[in-house]
Amino acid sequence: MSRVTARRKTTRLSAGARIQRPDTLAVEEPLEIRVDGQSLTVTMRTPGNDIDLVHGFLFGENIIGSAQDLVSARYCAGTDADGHNTYNVLDIRLRTPVPLHTRNFLTTGACGLCGKTALDEVRTNTRHPLRPDAGTVAVDTLAELPGKLRAAQKLFDITGGLHAAGLFSTDGALLAVREDIGRHNAVDKVIGWAVREHRIPAAELMLVVSSRASFELAQKAVMAGIPVLAAVSAPSSLAVDLAIESGLTLVGFLRGESMNIYAGEHRLT
Amino acid sequence: MSRVTARRKTTRLSAGARIQRPDTLAVEEPLEIRVDGQSLTVTMRTPGNDIDLVHGFLFGENIIGSAQDLVSARYCAGTDADGHNTYNVLDIRLRTPVPLHTRNFLTTGACGLCGKTALDEVRTNTRHPLRPDAGTVAVDTLAELPGKLRAAQKLFDITGGLHAAGLFSTDGALLAVREDIGRHNAVDKVIGWAVREHRIPAAELMLVVSSRASFELAQKAVMAGIPVLAAVSAPSSLAVDLAIESGLTLVGFLRGESMNIYAGEHRLT
Repeated sequence: MSRVTARRKTTRLSAGARIQRPDTLAVEEPLEIRVDGQSLTVTMRTPGNDIDLVHGFLFGENIIGSAQDLVSARYCAGTDADGHNTYNVLDIRLRTPVPLHTRNFLTTGACGLCGKTALDEVRTNTRHPLRPDAGTVAVDTLAELPGKLRAAQKLFDITGGLHAAGLFSTDGALLAVREDIGRHNAVDKVIGWAVREHRIPAAELMLVVSSRASFELAQKAVMAGIPVLAAVSAPSSLAVDLAIESGLTLVGFLRGESMNIYAGEHRLT
Repeated sequence: MSRVTARRKTTRLSAGARIQRPDTLAVEEPLEIRVDGQSLTVTMRTPGNDIDLVHGFLFGENIIGSAQDLVSARYCAGTDADGHNTYNVLDIRLRTPVPLHTRNFLTTGACGLCGKTALDEVRTNTRHPLRPDAGTVAVDTLAELPGKLRAAQKLFDITGGLHAAGLFSTDGALLAVREDIGRHNAVDKVIGWAVREHRIPAAELMLVVSSRASFELAQKAVMAGIPVLAAVSAPSSLAVDLAIESGLTLVGFLRGESMNIYAGEHRLT
């Protein structure tokens, strides 16, 4: 965990006392993803599981459809001014070159950009439309997931600054958990794990996030064919709209036995 | 507030009961920013204060240095398929055309991308280096800011899904507060307010955020010449590194009388 957390000097004021001590923080570092020599994106992430991250990111962007599409992923062999490899540049080789787009939305001369544009993009791009009959889950099982995710978060207790994403089977078994300073990265890492484990489409898996559920997270679930997304906090309007349109089961404010079901209630028993 | 929040049907499970009711959610919609006819970026944001948002975003990206650099900002006059203006595309005209970059980091053939690269970029780009003697604030004043910010958050109580950013004077007066589903947008909106009010460099203002403090948020504070950034939750390692290098006072876990001071303690009295 050397580069996942870092210690910095801090002055703590509490109850009138002033203490100087080191504090453990979540590391944030840029990761540049290059595809066939071309810079695709830079994301601010917590180092660790970068290979998962890049698989999940490229899958979510529809640049790869499976692990086979990615021939190699390796850290750039160069070094920084001090002679160290930064491990912050990943060179990707694809089996088949694809035209790269660096934006989630194709913007044109037209002015109709709206939430619906975003929904349409997901429908157009997804390779794994959700089946209404896949992914049935018991409400009691769902209620236990945040606790299981929390127990598996090694780093949150230390830093208080990391999001977590977990993939669970529909009977409630935790299959993979990833933590990151960015919730989209945590989700990319866990979906990248599924891509590398050849579990896509993940028609019998559930994605649980320690955060809110934005459109982007719902989009990543849909793209991976994951039928259930559960969030500890609130969803956005557009995440709910995407869930309704794509047949995703979306649960928010999942806190023990209480939860809000925004879409796809038919999967809950 | 018509488009800031939206109601969606939900099923609430709690204490064994099952209730169907509408839930109020934070609206998330794409905003495309076009500069002199060229698409610069699409951000997922909560509608409202878009003119502030675009001023703050362009200022943080070093595309404008003051409100005068932005000649006009208006919603694209076109309409969507239903004949409605989406209010999701803003056309910007600049006083002086500038070459646009859509990435925070200039990536080159070299492999040395690391946190230091990011810090160097801020140092190179900032127009308003922080003065060590500006922005002195009493610890007691600081302790009251999260409560004041929370009281000014009109929408959090309704939706539970919005971040807030506030600008305060160093004597603790709230000057502006903005809410958004993305914390970077909330900060862009409040800094955009300062740009439009000709308060840049904001050498006697404090930026308070309801969230964690990432590198990106610290960067936005430094670019605006704001000497104090206080966050309710944890900072990242790189946010602390930037604060130390740029002379920014960075406070985290600000919760009433208790707080962690990560950098720039000399400003606190």
